[in-house]
Amino acid sequence: MKLSEIGEFGLIKAISATTGKGKGVVMGVGDDAAVLTSSPDKVFLITTDLLLEGVHFSLEFTDYHSLGRKAAGVNLSDIAACGGKPTAFLVSLAIPPETDAASVKALYKGMVEQARTYGVSLVGGDTSRGETLMISVTFIGEVEERNCVYRHGAQEGDRIFVTGTLGDSALGLKMLKKGVKEGDPVRRHLDPTPRVREGGEIARRGLATAMIDISDGLIADLGHILEASGVGAEIHLPKLPLSASYRKHINAYYKNPYLLALAGGEDYELLFTAPEGRPEAIKKLADELGTPITMIGEIVEASSEVTIVGPDGRKFPVEQRGHDHFKT
Amino acid sequence: MKLSEIGEFGLIKAISATTGKGKGVVMGVGDDAAVLTSSPDKVFLITTDLLLEGVHFSLEFTDYHSLGRKAAGVNLSDIAACGGKPTAFLVSLAIPPETDAASVKALYKGMVEQARTYGVSLVGGDTSRGETLMISVTFIGEVEERNCVYRHGAQEGDRIFVTGTLGDSALGLKMLKKGVKEGDPVRRHLDPTPRVREGGEIARRGLATAMIDISDGLIADLGHILEASGVGAEIHLPKLPLSASYRKHINAYYKNPYLLALAGGEDYELLFTAPEGRPEAIKKLADELGTPITMIGEIVEASSEVTIVGPDGRKFPVEQRGHDHFKT
Repeated sequence: MKLSEIGEFGLIKAISATTGKGKGVVMGVGDDAAVLTSSPDKVFLITTDLLLEGVHFSLEFTDYHSLGRKAAGVNLSDIAACGGKPTAFLVSLAIPPETDAASVKALYKGMVEQARTYGVSLVGGDTSRGETLMISVTFIGEVEERNCVYRHGAQEGDRIFVTGTLGDSALGLKMLKKGVKEGDPVRRHLDPTPRVREGGEIARRGLATAMIDISDGLIADLGHILEASGVGAEIHLPKLPLSASYRKHINAYYKNPYLLALAGGEDYELLFTAPEGRPEAIKKLADELGTPITMIGEIVEASSEVTIVGPDGRKFPVEQRGHDHFKT
Repeated sequence: MKLSEIGEFGLIKAISATTGKGKGVVMGVGDDAAVLTSSPDKVFLITTDLLLEGVHFSLEFTDYHSLGRKAAGVNLSDIAACGGKPTAFLVSLAIPPETDAASVKALYKGMVEQARTYGVSLVGGDTSRGETLMISVTFIGEVEERNCVYRHGAQEGDRIFVTGTLGDSALGLKMLKKGVKEGDPVRRHLDPTPRVREGGEIARRGLATAMIDISDGLIADLGHILEASGVGAEIHLPKLPLSASYRKHINAYYKNPYLLALAGGEDYELLFTAPEGRPEAIKKLADELGTPITMIGEIVEASSEVTIVGPDGRKFPVEQRGHDHFKT
């Protein structure tokens, strides 16, 4: 059945059925605003991301359920990057009226399912018809103020760490564009895992001086930390954590096996800096959570630049070139 | 200069320059999430609205600055309807790359200016290119939990009140469509005033049992209160507050002078119910704020229906027909 047949109120009714009243939710979907309790001694985190068909995703590659999981996941990743615990979320959708109602329900189901993994419920949003699918997700979280991790705390001598592996998502997108529809990199691209538990523990244990999630690629996001902190960085190429399936497939796409790990986007891993003496505590955390955390370089004196150190010890500076949505 | 020339980062820089670090803002634009302090003993309100070109507005009728003011205003209206005090907001925009950068700046300036009237600053958001202009605004507010006003508290015997005047915005839209570009109704349509102070005082003084803002039209929004509260309502047609300019122009558009006041949308006035004994306290509030507040009817036994009482005392029930974004 098309959305134009069940109508806006039918859709809202279907959505409301998927929402639960979570902890801290006084009033969820169904009033002028959602009403949430705030925890004493905690600060409140709020982040929002826009996903547009044809810009951020293609319905050729993703199904609606995965798209929903990813839309929630990328926002959860931002909460994780501050060391926060997610508490609630809102979704606004613009949808072409000829869309199947079942597809829209699968989209919500994906979002709600992803959020529920972290005990979070949908508390509000808005819907409208639109020419193309547009998803605007807003996540709310909380953290003790003294544990909140920003981008601006990195200091000379700090070590640089990254969770998980790099480049898989960008490789997955390349594979999808070549017609490959399966495999780990493809899954990583379509349904990335936000590092919510990792970010929360890194913050709670006071391990990081600065943290960000990798959405635009390692180099670009490290650049945000460097700019905010007024420091430079050296990244050791051979230390970059590459997954087995990345190593297996990358040669079919690129001569340089490090390129996508350095500059590919949408890994949604956490990148953080920590003082020199903490690798043991970080190793302990990695073991406890079962998530690899790898030291990939160090913070150097003020320059806001990234220098890559190759396998042979040769250094070469990197020109910053983030993706610009308005330039082509 | 086109947006495609200044680019996303140029735009973000221009936006950041318009944002201030307001009260309660630990970290605004520029990190993974905005960080806000929460007030002890208060609950947290959050609301979001989507405005799409061709659906919610036409660039033929509005300039970017007014559009910005309205995008912030309609969200402020939702915070007001809960009796809340707005504290911060986020904006996500999808913008065609060929848009003038000056237009986008005017849009932000309008939003920031509207928000600043209430001491609120922009703390985050997202931007992307898109085929048509899309504005997703999220407002945050706070209120003491015992003062928060919902839709579900109306009781039989309560009187029904409305702030300001009704129908002006819908009439203004009619006028715009006929090529009329000036006059009070047009201004009311393009740049409605959210009743933030009124909502806050109604809540603080404990005057209302239920409240909502009128975005879909009096009948439709009253319907939401009735449904949530499990009651019915009678509205006295001759009591509807109509502005002088509405009375002056309405005859050129409709035979029935009450139609737009009953069913026209986007008034962004507050509609609330109050126990029988409170008209004096409400009159005092209206006098203090200089805002008309008019009693237009009363809550009757359970039925979820609105009955209109005409000038001659004749009653006729109203069929609920809210605007559906997906049906045509």
